Amino acid sequence: MKGLAKDLGHIVAKERVKTDPEDLFAYSGDATYYIKRGNPDAVVLPENTNEVSEVMRYAFHNAIPVTPRGAGSGLSGGCTPLRGGIVLDMKRMGKILEISRRNMSARVEAGVVLGDFHRAVKKEGLFYPPNPQSMNVCTLGGNVATRACGPHGVKYGATGDYVMGLEVVLPDGSIIAPGGLAARSSAGYDLTHLFAGSEGTLGVITKANFRLLALPPAHRTAVVACETIEQAGDTVAEILAGGTLPAMVEFIPQMAIIAMNNYINPPLITEGQAYLLIDLDGTLDEIQAQADHVLGICRRMGVLDIRVIEDEKEAETYWTARSNLGAMLLTVMKKAINEDVAVPRDKIPEFVREIQKMAATLSKVVLGIGGHAGDGNMHPSIFFPEVNKEAESEAQETIKKVVRLGLSLGGTVSGEHGIGFHKAEFLHWELGEIQIRLLKRIKKAFDPKGIMNPGKLWKDGR
Amino acid sequence: MKGLAKDLGHIVAKERVKTDPEDLFAYSGDATYYIKRGNPDAVVLPENTNEVSEVMRYAFHNAIPVTPRGAGSGLSGGCTPLRGGIVLDMKRMGKILEISRRNMSARVEAGVVLGDFHRAVKKEGLFYPPNPQSMNVCTLGGNVATRACGPHGVKYGATGDYVMGLEVVLPDGSIIAPGGLAARSSAGYDLTHLFAGSEGTLGVITKANFRLLALPPAHRTAVVACETIEQAGDTVAEILAGGTLPAMVEFIPQMAIIAMNNYINPPLITEGQAYLLIDLDGTLDEIQAQADHVLGICRRMGVLDIRVIEDEKEAETYWTARSNLGAMLLTVMKKAINEDVAVPRDKIPEFVREIQKMAATLSKVVLGIGGHAGDGNMHPSIFFPEVNKEAESEAQETIKKVVRLGLSLGGTVSGEHGIGFHKAEFLHWELGEIQIRLLKRIKKAFDPKGIMNPGKLWKDGR
Repeated sequence: MKGLAKDLGHIVAKERVKTDPEDLFAYSGDATYYIKRGNPDAVVLPENTNEVSEVMRYAFHNAIPVTPRGAGSGLSGGCTPLRGGIVLDMKRMGKILEISRRNMSARVEAGVVLGDFHRAVKKEGLFYPPNPQSMNVCTLGGNVATRACGPHGVKYGATGDYVMGLEVVLPDGSIIAPGGLAARSSAGYDLTHLFAGSEGTLGVITKANFRLLALPPAHRTAVVACETIEQAGDTVAEILAGGTLPAMVEFIPQMAIIAMNNYINPPLITEGQAYLLIDLDGTLDEIQAQADHVLGICRRMGVLDIRVIEDEKEAETYWTARSNLGAMLLTVMKKAINEDVAVPRDKIPEFVREIQKMAATLSKVVLGIGGHAGDGNMHPSIFFPEVNKEAESEAQETIKKVVRLGLSLGGTVSGEHGIGFHKAEFLHWELGEIQIRLLKRIKKAFDPKGIMNPGKLWKDGR
Repeated sequence: MKGLAKDLGHIVAKERVKTDPEDLFAYSGDATYYIKRGNPDAVVLPENTNEVSEVMRYAFHNAIPVTPRGAGSGLSGGCTPLRGGIVLDMKRMGKILEISRRNMSARVEAGVVLGDFHRAVKKEGLFYPPNPQSMNVCTLGGNVATRACGPHGVKYGATGDYVMGLEVVLPDGSIIAPGGLAARSSAGYDLTHLFAGSEGTLGVITKANFRLLALPPAHRTAVVACETIEQAGDTVAEILAGGTLPAMVEFIPQMAIIAMNNYINPPLITEGQAYLLIDLDGTLDEIQAQADHVLGICRRMGVLDIRVIEDEKEAETYWTARSNLGAMLLTVMKKAINEDVAVPRDKIPEFVREIQKMAATLSKVVLGIGGHAGDGNMHPSIFFPEVNKEAESEAQETIKKVVRLGLSLGGTVSGEHGIGFHKAEFLHWELGEIQIRLLKRIKKAFDPKGIMNPGKLWKDGR
């Protein structure tokens, strides 16, 4: 593959083409270290759309697989270069091109880090809600490619609800810009939302336009300790049915609170089997009205404890701890597999009950839920006290049962992480063969040679 | 085509197959009476999804064109059966299947009338925002097919922002149900939003799931008389840049106010060249805060008059009059052509100024704007004092200039009406040939025989 590096070195500066074995290994997978990886033959770091276009034109001509990559923080293997070829690391395309208060919109390059974007729009008094837990590393291009979401989903929706337009390089190198900056459009098939969630299989997202909201003037955080996990599920369902939407409602299991207590002061009571971490936002009057309503429901449900955190800085420590939950749990567990089966909101109590029943039957692994309860996206996860063959097999069986449970409740196999290749089998379960056939035909319409991120979404790759 | 009626009569009850010439004429076009029509060979009124499936299977086998139709209230010829064949009138599929407070969602059949749906969800204390002016006749299936919107777009977005899942009959008769009732999903290409806006060219929408909001507790209407049309445009831009989003901001030209004054009491002052009809919603406190902000800006902009209507019943008369604006204007004009070129919000003042300049050069027709100013969707329309060849030619020239102006400002050729066949040429201007080619390939992926609503979206039909 020497020729490949040389050819690519004619398109972009040589130092932005990587072929050293340690580089190739670094680009061989995403945040799911426990699943098969695949080395690329070369990694390219383009700095502008024209370079992406030229790389694609070259790859198209030579039928070389290309896998676009944001930060590699995905949880379903979406950017694993299963069939080798070229990885396009987009992080050098990291410019925020415009933040417009008058149009309540922004234009960015795909490699902009979400957390940086949050801070930049906040400076203008504006607000971009999607906040997956990887927000300090993940890129906006990756967010669009997976329709990423995070805790704000309950009130504010996901990335797909904010993307107004894109710039995309197609597999043959041609450049298109579906959508735009108008508040809405009914001009033909919605290519923008077709690329959103396409996980790099239809083209390379190089730029995106997002709509922005006015920054809510204030926040208040509450932590609600629930006696049982079932009580937590019921309480979330009651809060949502009441019509008041908190900005975030996170579901945190007891073991996570115990881990979190090392980082927060004063520590939380640990008697609860489950905790709700709630954020209310708006004007102070609005927050008060929401708090009366939400906490009133919590009391009526007989929860163990409610702590309202008035100080924004202190509240921030809870949310930071929440962001680092995954890492914290790995200080007490050897391995974790995070699923993101999501169910309709009214099915949360039933989902929680069935998960608990399932958890009680396990002996080698622990099945827990902890995540964005507010939109039914509760991240059932498998934790390994020890890693061995029996645990692995129990984990895989359990994941399949959880997925079937979610689907039987009208849910989806992925609320926000995407399918990648880990969930390819599950996508067939959810969509059925007729829809899968349509997906494959769409893929073919965009990518006749099958070079864009091959091996993803469905079982037989292209 | 006797055989056709007979065959269809084996699939659905004979009285739901129409072939009389007067029936066929009634189904030959939409609300744009002034553009070419096309008679179908037969009209079928299916009562359930299986009947739609069987009709499609039959049409597929025999390569007969099929045009789905909601209420026929479209404004771009979307349901005109240009190549004959079968019109599927969906209005018999008119059941609201479920309204769930706990999931904040609804499931409906495609033929449900939007206004009926509004009233049904309101009874449950819920709110479905999209409100195109045809809401008392148009159907939810048609709304999805065109991504319809209406005045609520400024604060609440369009139909596409509310559709969570669909049931669709594909051209070969197979039935799929993309999406569902979970708050979000990242499970493969977003077929739901690909069908939304596909104008019947990919399949027949038979059912839809929508997310719902909590009903805002109160409303207040204000009418702002502006000295000039430019002042009205500037005022809208300032209001939006201030970060407060009214529920609706409609732009009403002077001639419409004069027509409206026949229907409202006391009449409005008529000195303004343009009027803003504004709706604020929320709690009374929120409305007060919004009113202080919005009306403060209006005063600062030096508007002629502000009337705040406290009484909801009285306010209703203004909004009803607004809904009937099109009909009212046709009491003083012989003909109207309604365009829905929309521009980014920050381009509203420039768009308005350029439209005014253009209007001043016209001698045979009148160019006016009046519509959903709040989201830059200001419906530039052509009015004919007399209909003749010169007026027609001036009108067509002007429409082209308006479309080119909108596109040069980063706008779209259709904010909410869809492309149908009237705007096929303009879609090429907006998307360019690479995107058009993708659209055609997508069409082919879904509809290999080209039987679904042929002749729409792009210039050469299929």
